[in-house]
Amino acid sequence: MAGYVSEAVIRRLPGYYRHLCELEAKGVEQISSQELGRQMHLIPSQIRQDINCFGGFGRKGYGYNVASLREHIGEILGLDTMHSVIIIGAGSIGSALANYPDFHKDSFDILALFDIDPALVGTKIGGAPVYSMDELDAFLAAHHVDIAVLCVPKQAAQSVLNRLETGGVNAVWNFAPVDLQHETECSIVENVHLSDSLRVLSYKMAHPEKEPTKE
Amino acid sequence: MAGYVSEAVIRRLPGYYRHLCELEAKGVEQISSQELGRQMHLIPSQIRQDINCFGGFGRKGYGYNVASLREHIGEILGLDTMHSVIIIGAGSIGSALANYPDFHKDSFDILALFDIDPALVGTKIGGAPVYSMDELDAFLAAHHVDIAVLCVPKQAAQSVLNRLETGGVNAVWNFAPVDLQHETECSIVENVHLSDSLRVLSYKMAHPEKEPTKE
Repeated sequence: MAGYVSEAVIRRLPGYYRHLCELEAKGVEQISSQELGRQMHLIPSQIRQDINCFGGFGRKGYGYNVASLREHIGEILGLDTMHSVIIIGAGSIGSALANYPDFHKDSFDILALFDIDPALVGTKIGGAPVYSMDELDAFLAAHHVDIAVLCVPKQAAQSVLNRLETGGVNAVWNFAPVDLQHETECSIVENVHLSDSLRVLSYKMAHPEKEPTKE
Repeated sequence: MAGYVSEAVIRRLPGYYRHLCELEAKGVEQISSQELGRQMHLIPSQIRQDINCFGGFGRKGYGYNVASLREHIGEILGLDTMHSVIIIGAGSIGSALANYPDFHKDSFDILALFDIDPALVGTKIGGAPVYSMDELDAFLAAHHVDIAVLCVPKQAAQSVLNRLETGGVNAVWNFAPVDLQHETECSIVENVHLSDSLRVLSYKMAHPEKEPTKE
C-alpha cells in the first residue's frame, strides 16, 4: 500500500469498482488495462498507475482477473466492513436515500431516520424507523453509528453536525447545500453537491465543441 | 477562451461558483487567490491556472473582484441561459429533485415530470405536473426540452434514453445506477452515481491516516 494517494485517484476508485461489478455480472473473467480503458474512456497507463498505488496487481500479457480486482478495490474502499448509518432529515432526499437499493448491497446498514416533523415520526421509510430529532442524542448514546447522512436544510446543517460529533459520529455524508466545517481532527465530511453535477452538464451544453478527455 | 479545458478543471468550476456566491452573499468584494485557496483547501497557483483557462482575470496585487468573477464563471457554466427541464420518473429521487430549491435559482425550469404510476399521473410535484410516460413523445413534439433528468430503474434507463434522443433531447442528467451509452454525437450524458460518493467516504473512514491534498 502506498502512503500517499491523491484525491483524484480515490475519486476514480468507485468507477472502477462499479465497472468491474458489471463485468463480473456479465461473466467476464479477465480484462486488459487496454480494454478497460477503452470501455471506461480512460488512458490504460493511468488505470495501471491508479491500481498500482495499492500494490502490484495484474500480470503482464494477461491483464487483470476481474473478480479478484473487484474484491481488491472493494477492500480498499472499505466495502468489506459493515457500516451502521443514520439519516438526519426524512424529507424527499432523506427518503430517497433510505429507499436506494444499492446502499444495502454495499454493507451500509440504515438503522434509523430522524426528523422534526411529527407526522413522520413513528413511520418507517425503506424499512427503517423514523425518530424525533429530540431522540437523537439518546440514540447516539445507545448505538454505535459509523455514518450520519445529513439531509437537513442549509441553516440547520452546522448545528446538527456539532450534535453528531458530540455523539461520537465521525463520518458525515452531507447533502445540505453547504460545505460543512468539521471541528475535530478525526471526523470526515463528504459533501455532495447535486447542483455541481447539473452545472457541469450545463457547461458541456454551452461548450459542445469541447469534448475533454478524462483526467 | 482556451480551446481545450480538461475534465478536472470543468469539475472544479461549480465549486468556485458556489464559494463565490457565498462570499458575495456575505458582502465580500475582493479576494486574493491565496485567501481563496486557504478557504477552499486548494493551491493558489491552481486556482489562478484554472481561471486563466477562460481568459485573463484578476489583477496582480488586488486579486479577484468577487461579483465579477462569480458572474464570469456563471457565464462559463452557461447559468445565464434558461434551460427547460423534464424529469422522467417521479419516485423518491425524481420528487426530491423537483423539490430542490437550488435548481430554480440557477435558471433550470422544470416543465413536467413523467411516470408510469397512474396514482402519480395528474398530481403536481414541486409545482410541476406529472404526466404519463405514454404522453412523453407527444410532449417532446410540442415542447422544446433542453435537459431530461433520468430517475428511472436501471432496466428502463437505456430505452428511455433512446426515446428522449428520438424526441430531440440532447442533454441527460442520469440518476439511474448505470453508465448510459449515448448513440448520437451531439448528446451529452452526465451520470450521477450517489454510491460513488458514499464509497469515497467509506475509503476515507478505512484510511483515516491519509488526508490527501485536493488535486
